[in-house]
Amino acid sequence: MSDESEMAPGLETGIDNDAFRDAEGWISALWLERLRAFIEAGRTEDVALVMAPLHSSDIGDVLEQLDQGERLALVRMLGEKFDFSALTEVDESIRLEIMEALSNSEIARGVAELDNDDAVYLLEDLEKEDQDEILSALPAFERLALKRSLDFPEDSAGRRMQTDFIAIPPFWTVGQTIDYLRADKDLPDEFYQIYVVDAAYKVLGTLPLDKFLRAQRATKIDAIMNANLVLVKAEDDQEEAARIFERYDLVEVGVVDENGRLVGVLTIDDIVDVIQEEAEEDIKLLAGVGDEDVSDTTLDTVRSRGPWLGVNLVAAVLVSFVIGLFNATIEQMVALAVLMPIVASMGGNAGAQTMTVTVRALAMRELDGGRLRRLIRREMVVGFANGVIFAVLLGVVTALRYSDVGLGVVIGMAMVINMIVAGTFGILIPLTLDRLKADPAIASAVFVTTITDIVGFFAFLAIAGLWFGLF
Amino acid sequence: MSDESEMAPGLETGIDNDAFRDAEGWISALWLERLRAFIEAGRTEDVALVMAPLHSSDIGDVLEQLDQGERLALVRMLGEKFDFSALTEVDESIRLEIMEALSNSEIARGVAELDNDDAVYLLEDLEKEDQDEILSALPAFERLALKRSLDFPEDSAGRRMQTDFIAIPPFWTVGQTIDYLRADKDLPDEFYQIYVVDAAYKVLGTLPLDKFLRAQRATKIDAIMNANLVLVKAEDDQEEAARIFERYDLVEVGVVDENGRLVGVLTIDDIVDVIQEEAEEDIKLLAGVGDEDVSDTTLDTVRSRGPWLGVNLVAAVLVSFVIGLFNATIEQMVALAVLMPIVASMGGNAGAQTMTVTVRALAMRELDGGRLRRLIRREMVVGFANGVIFAVLLGVVTALRYSDVGLGVVIGMAMVINMIVAGTFGILIPLTLDRLKADPAIASAVFVTTITDIVGFFAFLAIAGLWFGLF
Repeated sequence: MSDESEMAPGLETGIDNDAFRDAEGWISALWLERLRAFIEAGRTEDVALVMAPLHSSDIGDVLEQLDQGERLALVRMLGEKFDFSALTEVDESIRLEIMEALSNSEIARGVAELDNDDAVYLLEDLEKEDQDEILSALPAFERLALKRSLDFPEDSAGRRMQTDFIAIPPFWTVGQTIDYLRADKDLPDEFYQIYVVDAAYKVLGTLPLDKFLRAQRATKIDAIMNANLVLVKAEDDQEEAARIFERYDLVEVGVVDENGRLVGVLTIDDIVDVIQEEAEEDIKLLAGVGDEDVSDTTLDTVRSRGPWLGVNLVAAVLVSFVIGLFNATIEQMVALAVLMPIVASMGGNAGAQTMTVTVRALAMRELDGGRLRRLIRREMVVGFANGVIFAVLLGVVTALRYSDVGLGVVIGMAMVINMIVAGTFGILIPLTLDRLKADPAIASAVFVTTITDIVGFFAFLAIAGLWFGLF
Repeated sequence: MSDESEMAPGLETGIDNDAFRDAEGWISALWLERLRAFIEAGRTEDVALVMAPLHSSDIGDVLEQLDQGERLALVRMLGEKFDFSALTEVDESIRLEIMEALSNSEIARGVAELDNDDAVYLLEDLEKEDQDEILSALPAFERLALKRSLDFPEDSAGRRMQTDFIAIPPFWTVGQTIDYLRADKDLPDEFYQIYVVDAAYKVLGTLPLDKFLRAQRATKIDAIMNANLVLVKAEDDQEEAARIFERYDLVEVGVVDENGRLVGVLTIDDIVDVIQEEAEEDIKLLAGVGDEDVSDTTLDTVRSRGPWLGVNLVAAVLVSFVIGLFNATIEQMVALAVLMPIVASMGGNAGAQTMTVTVRALAMRELDGGRLRRLIRREMVVGFANGVIFAVLLGVVTALRYSDVGLGVVIGMAMVINMIVAGTFGILIPLTLDRLKADPAIASAVFVTTITDIVGFFAFLAIAGLWFGLF
């Protein structure tokens, strides 16, 4: 029963010259070179030999490293030996590419060997037609379980759950349960707790394995089970489920349907992926890159980034119209054109700082009443304080550069105004988006920059116009 | 042994009118109002009563919600009932604030009841002097374990590990082990696997509880243990440990010292925090807000954001000098000043997109040889394609706005150049920082924007100068 075949070589604490990964955690270039040579030479047996000891996540990494041709050749050469769970570890574009190259019956054979949650993960992105064809090639029991999971909304707990779990009645003893576990050949691959259910599969309690192990054989299950339940509804969003895992340091949680019946379990390894994705999503939305991976094609990348650049173009043109209002002012004093981007740039940066803190605090549910008021107050003061500090610095530099104290004063005043505006809108914009049930990360950046640009240019040019009497 | 007291009310699937959290996962405003009233009225017993059912992470959330005065009053009123593990769930500034308000002997009493990893987490940020005083007030065994953990570098696996674990010899049977677990009162709070060690505590194998449960009583441990070890070294960085957890979907891993002896274990709940922090760090570094929380004081925030704004100021002044080179050109054609921020802004955005993808790919170890070459190629093409698309759009708009086809052509050319530059440096800068062993997220943004600003302004003004013969 040893899991020896599941672990990558070279991960032991000792040193392995034939290491699959180097000290930094990257796949060894040497190892990869050898695999490539085997693939090119069509040495099917050698390919199978070097791939055999790899864990599915390592196989996924290898697939991502190879070129498209090599990748498909590798999958073909491995044939039935190819572990489909590796496909859950690669970027979406690579997963779809490989699945498109395989026939539906090949996919059905591979999927049949997967855990329910992995199978759903592979099937959910396929065309309805292919999905049905693959499902119909599976044994009835698995087909039903998969169909049920696929019926739950995308990104719901029901989609991510594993439908294999251990459920026992409350009147069993510890000894009876152990005997049942020892006898049952069809247990889930990995489990961390046992569910105690009534005849209708309504959950009465849970029993973590470590607690279970410490109990005497004669103990009744309902005497030691944890009756204060933390459960997730199948329709709940996976991010909501992730927050519950984090909040209560869970490793596994039961998933119930609308009638409170246990239909599956979520385990921490799925949730770690959700947490990763969520943080990843915020970073990417803030930069305007959507749901994009390094392995996406050029065309997909152009498409995914276009809309954001388009929005930014409209905003930038709008800003330039504001500058255009001051045509005559700039004509009389070109130094203004030279200096104005500094004020806008500082405001943009300060705004991005406040916005990022706000977006993350919203994502982490850290901004309720009291804390929100404190944050707003703080950001206004910080904007003012940093505004004054950098206004003085920039004012002095500008006064010296142009030998004109007035110009230094003007740019300093514009800077203070823009920094306070940056702090204010850096909070208000993500907050408003959140209240409107939109993702605060998605469009905050372009709104905030547009405002700090407009205010930066306008304040500087208007104050300068008044100060120097250029209107 | 039920954990009833550990769970927040209102988390059951049923509906609880007295709910601690509302449907969105926020702490209920009503609940909080009541607690505040109790604190203000000095009703110690009522405070203890409403706080009693809360999980430590809920207590942490409550602490973060209260004002400084209420927070300290709450801790004082709870007295010995205050669960110190709640302090591991709050922002650093709040943790230090509360710990400073408590005497070292009070802290020692609270810390004594914590798991080793939580205790280290609380102690590591204290002054050496306070640390020593608290440690000396603890029982010898705990003191030694804590000292040993604190001796490992900050953010290492050794700092984060739990030093309670179950280790058994390989020649025991399953039955013997179960009897041992049932008899031993001093087991760790939670554990997911058993470690098989030799007399010198060198790890020979691991045994997940679910596998252990399925084995017959007479089975020898070394016949079922997993002998292919995944272990983490105590000096390893916690981020390296987190990557191993993610890669192999682990729930628990053994930590060994330089001699290969088992000294502790890392569990997934600690690692989830590390994963969160790491993603969080990238988002914040990209925006230049350092290691900052919503609960930080105004002064700390001004200090933490200042350096970044300072760097940006220097960069912006540098950019303005580049614009200053074209003083005479702008004087002859003010429209250039009005239009030039558009080119810079588009380049800045495109650069941020590429940079974000690169920074995340580096963090996820996704950029080895083949993939890096593909990414560079893709980003050049994407920059060119988006450059051409938006150059045409902006060119047409500009030509119409100023009734000047030449100006449209000039701004279009500048745009294509700047977008290609943005794509190139969006990769090269984080990559260079990474090669120099710096965090690619930290300074990439300011470098990339400075370059796209300079190239944007320079290309546009220089091409315009040549085209219209303004030099």
